[in-house]
Amino acid sequence: MTMTDNNMRNGVDTATLFATLDAVRQNPEIGTFQFRATNRWVSGTHNRSTLHGFYGAMQEMTHAQEFSFDADHPAVLVGGDRGPTPVEFLLHAIAACLTAGIANIAAARGVNLDSVESTVEGDIDLNGILGMSDEVRNGYQQIRVNFVLRGDDPEKLAKVVEQSRARSAVFDVLTNGCPVAISVDAG
Amino acid sequence: MTMTDNNMRNGVDTATLFATLDAVRQNPEIGTFQFRATNRWVSGTHNRSTLHGFYGAMQEMTHAQEFSFDADHPAVLVGGDRGPTPVEFLLHAIAACLTAGIANIAAARGVNLDSVESTVEGDIDLNGILGMSDEVRNGYQQIRVNFVLRGDDPEKLAKVVEQSRARSAVFDVLTNGCPVAISVDAG
Repeated sequence: MTMTDNNMRNGVDTATLFATLDAVRQNPEIGTFQFRATNRWVSGTHNRSTLHGFYGAMQEMTHAQEFSFDADHPAVLVGGDRGPTPVEFLLHAIAACLTAGIANIAAARGVNLDSVESTVEGDIDLNGILGMSDEVRNGYQQIRVNFVLRGDDPEKLAKVVEQSRARSAVFDVLTNGCPVAISVDAG
Repeated sequence: MTMTDNNMRNGVDTATLFATLDAVRQNPEIGTFQFRATNRWVSGTHNRSTLHGFYGAMQEMTHAQEFSFDADHPAVLVGGDRGPTPVEFLLHAIAACLTAGIANIAAARGVNLDSVESTVEGDIDLNGILGMSDEVRNGYQQIRVNFVLRGDDPEKLAKVVEQSRARSAVFDVLTNGCPVAISVDAG
């Protein structure tokens, strides 16, 4: 997993990473991004999102391929279990964001990673969304992320995780929230 | 898309839905759930989460199948584009949660849906996560969800969307935030 040939470390092209940072430093507008999803209801709690286009680096862009994801409720929640629940995608998002940050930051600091694994747990009391109690929130009461990292000096690895947390987009949204505006065209 | 045979409406088994609500009303502990993900770093910003087991209805449960999702950065963000970015999964999660709620609430209210489509946009300034400015937040500055619904009476449809928002787990987490605890075993 560890590559130090050329400018690669942890699978990260550090020369390109540093060049990208320099480009944004020179022209902050490069950093203005907009990500997008489209979702279509299938039946019951089953629906599907597609992710493809986005705006960034001052241009319209697309992913190399179109990504499509199903979401559903399991049978115990009166669904067909054709995909994870929407809230489970939040757990994937936080693990993925922190882990990508760990790889980048470790590479930038010259720290080699052998493995990064994490387990994420999210506690939720469905008495909220089911409308049984106004004292129970709808969302997760707590999320816990447990990392196991192997690689260079443990102290450096722990600091890399801390820096990844400090610069994680998903951690920021999940802990601080962000405005969500909803518009409806009903006909 | 509209089924009203037996107890089915919008693909929702309303009899089972109401029975589930009754069961939770009788024993609120049934509503205590824990969702889980495991994530493994692959290389660079590419990593993969698996979703399978969860706790709910007073027992350990598993989805009918194991779900696995890749996340990565696109080339413009120095990744291999082997999956969407972590923040894009937040857009899928909010669309999926609101849409599942719309289907359930419409069914419970006897409102028939023909179609539910949504587009989601998330504005993010990467000067935050790239550490260029302490005045720019790491996460989304705003998320917009635009729904187009067709079915019964538009006024009822709009009220269904509003109730889905009011009882959405993902909307709650994204707008209000929730505690995220991170532990590290580095070696």
